[in-house]
Amino acid sequence: MAMRMLSIVLALSAVSAQTPSAVSLIITNGIVVTVDGTRRVLNPGSVAINGTDIVAVDTPAAIAARYKGAQTIDATGKVVMPGLINTHTHAAMVMYRGLGNDLNLMDWLQKYIFPAEGKTVSPEFVRIGTRLAVLEMIQSGTTTFCDMYYFEEEVARVTKAAGLRGVLGQTVIEFPVPDAKTPADALRRTEAFAKEFAKDDLITPSLAPHSVYTLDAKTLTATSELAKRLNIPIQIHLAETQAEIGMSQERHKMRPVAILDALKFWAPITIGAHGVWIDDQEIALLKQRNVGISNNPESNMKLSSGTAPVVAYRSAGVNVGLGTDGAASNNDLDMFEAMRQAAFQQKLVTMDPTAISAPEALEMGTIAGARAIGQQARTGSLEAGKRADVIVVSLAKPRQQPVFDPISQIVYASRGDDVETTIVNGKVLMRDRKVLTMNEASVLADARQAADLVRKAVQ
Amino acid sequence: MAMRMLSIVLALSAVSAQTPSAVSLIITNGIVVTVDGTRRVLNPGSVAINGTDIVAVDTPAAIAARYKGAQTIDATGKVVMPGLINTHTHAAMVMYRGLGNDLNLMDWLQKYIFPAEGKTVSPEFVRIGTRLAVLEMIQSGTTTFCDMYYFEEEVARVTKAAGLRGVLGQTVIEFPVPDAKTPADALRRTEAFAKEFAKDDLITPSLAPHSVYTLDAKTLTATSELAKRLNIPIQIHLAETQAEIGMSQERHKMRPVAILDALKFWAPITIGAHGVWIDDQEIALLKQRNVGISNNPESNMKLSSGTAPVVAYRSAGVNVGLGTDGAASNNDLDMFEAMRQAAFQQKLVTMDPTAISAPEALEMGTIAGARAIGQQARTGSLEAGKRADVIVVSLAKPRQQPVFDPISQIVYASRGDDVETTIVNGKVLMRDRKVLTMNEASVLADARQAADLVRKAVQ
Repeated sequence: MAMRMLSIVLALSAVSAQTPSAVSLIITNGIVVTVDGTRRVLNPGSVAINGTDIVAVDTPAAIAARYKGAQTIDATGKVVMPGLINTHTHAAMVMYRGLGNDLNLMDWLQKYIFPAEGKTVSPEFVRIGTRLAVLEMIQSGTTTFCDMYYFEEEVARVTKAAGLRGVLGQTVIEFPVPDAKTPADALRRTEAFAKEFAKDDLITPSLAPHSVYTLDAKTLTATSELAKRLNIPIQIHLAETQAEIGMSQERHKMRPVAILDALKFWAPITIGAHGVWIDDQEIALLKQRNVGISNNPESNMKLSSGTAPVVAYRSAGVNVGLGTDGAASNNDLDMFEAMRQAAFQQKLVTMDPTAISAPEALEMGTIAGARAIGQQARTGSLEAGKRADVIVVSLAKPRQQPVFDPISQIVYASRGDDVETTIVNGKVLMRDRKVLTMNEASVLADARQAADLVRKAVQ
Repeated sequence: MAMRMLSIVLALSAVSAQTPSAVSLIITNGIVVTVDGTRRVLNPGSVAINGTDIVAVDTPAAIAARYKGAQTIDATGKVVMPGLINTHTHAAMVMYRGLGNDLNLMDWLQKYIFPAEGKTVSPEFVRIGTRLAVLEMIQSGTTTFCDMYYFEEEVARVTKAAGLRGVLGQTVIEFPVPDAKTPADALRRTEAFAKEFAKDDLITPSLAPHSVYTLDAKTLTATSELAKRLNIPIQIHLAETQAEIGMSQERHKMRPVAILDALKFWAPITIGAHGVWIDDQEIALLKQRNVGISNNPESNMKLSSGTAPVVAYRSAGVNVGLGTDGAASNNDLDMFEAMRQAAFQQKLVTMDPTAISAPEALEMGTIAGARAIGQQARTGSLEAGKRADVIVVSLAKPRQQPVFDPISQIVYASRGDDVETTIVNGKVLMRDRKVLTMNEASVLADARQAADLVRKAVQ
């Protein structure tokens, strides 16, 4: 004991020439999985956070010597990792979770979702649905999400109030929808929305032209021009189903990537959601145009949409992140499930069990996702200088034991429910499973009430 | 209020000519999903249990009028359903969870699992591993499991002590293993094991010849003859990988189903695990021979083994249940995940989203599984006269809200962690997430210690 004390004292004295700096929060003594450039894992390790930013990731002794935290979170035996990045969802659609199952995308959209949306979507409904989704995301360790929906300014207000990070896309679609009679209306809404959240540290306003099968060339071009003028990202459903390819060829005489390229549609940040029916030439072009891809394995399986060529994308250097899609086609927003499923689906379809490994799935759920959506300077890994988007994950449940490899355990044996603490922009949103920025009971009560509107709408 | 009281009194008087019978337990006022012959859902409904058996499933009013429970469990807003049936696992292999990921079956077995087993498996190790697995199964709503492992009498003792139901197979394999130097040794062990648990209500002893690629014709025949003489079920890995087909053809000059049929291998109850590489003629033969199939979607994806022709099996009338396989290739024993994955995998591979619906996946996880393993008279549905193997599942988490369709919510939005209460043979094994028949802390402590043996073995 005396020897151990002595060596600690010596270790401390070696680095304590300077006085420890005061920081807001230290997460101590965890299994720190950084997902940084060298895929460093510190076991044990600590993370020092000051204000919105990570200031250091190092051994517990080094952090203790250099920093003194106003708050401390003990992460002994737990994984400390970057918050997960959901690169494609429709948050408020949690309100349709479980509505119209076991149907293909076009039937499901046309028979259930579009009619239900027509009768239920309002600013209030979007607020209620987004609150439920944001609660679920905080509880399952998602710290950044990309959204496409209606009344996107409401999505943004809810997201910001709850403290989550979002790349939030105002939908543009050719038929009349609850927040816009015409695509021109939607573009006008976007200008106001982008202005409201300009330079916001949590909210990145974005434009979401729905797809090449629901928009004509003129509107696609107008959308792209507005995104470039406002310097905001574009999100678009891209080659999700075989049916989409047929509709694109019928309408535009070209496949989806070709028509978008012909229109010079791509913005500095463009996120293609799904990217399932894409050939090698298109992959090369998407790489050239710096388009990020959101792989949505669970939704693609549930709707029989197909399998994105994830291995080929990655070989070509395309940034591929993971998404859950809306909860109505998943049926959850759990990014742990998305990581596991991404690996499983690729292993099955390629018949190669090395196709997407646990570390690669983790990368897709974090830093690769951040790159795909243009947020890599802010988030996606635990590195000094980035925003502190951090989660602490328990490995203590019987179904997670024993632990030989923490990364395998995260990807193959853990779930959103195992997240204990969620931190975004340096702020603790959930601690020990208690969400601090939302009133869970009132979120659930509102959602149950709004669900009655949905029941009436589909009767 | 007076009117309501009056109508209740009238309703009661209509059925209360007889005095209520005393029963041991009533689960009241749940969303009762019976999975019986007519797929009856009572919402609300109650289940009356006396001793080991279900005595009635009916409306809360009818049950209240006819039965008085010594114990009552209020299931308001919760799903009450048959316990899940895991038709293929290697329980003690939870001890290798996360060991050697992202490898194909043959590499993984030969480089990691077989060597680790050679150095670690002992009666004590099997007890410790099985305890951890049984704890995980009780916590995730599995009430019956089929096992194939070594020292199977130890598996049986742990299973019986914890109160779970098992069809437990002593492994027979041609190379020396920790519990048998030769297949003949293994057959001798089986006789003793079968005698110890003859006529046990929870434990069904069984024989588990490993596969056609690890056994010669003579041993396959001897195993089958012993199973027939003891009148116990056979479990065998069947056509799991393409490699197995090649090895079978090399060794036996026939595909797996053909060699087994030529040897008249099939017992009255035979469970073929995996059944992936099976053609239509083989499906017809398996139906004729009354072979049940255990579909293991997660393991088949993780190991790139392939996709079982589940839709074709079901069309041909083959009983197909679901299994997790060992946790080392899954990496959990959660049958909710198995149900979701079974539906997802079939939807993906057939490109038909109606391929396996939520009600069909639920059926595979319960009554169809019971039929596949020959336990349908005892378990698999909530019906008077069957053993009371019942679980109560919460739908209250934000990620399960709102609830439009309880069966969709069970299959697509729920997990083992949502199970609150697990009852087997009328005995409450877990109530409100507290396991009553095992000491969780000591199970985990033992498992952590035994994990060190595994670490040393694979160094």
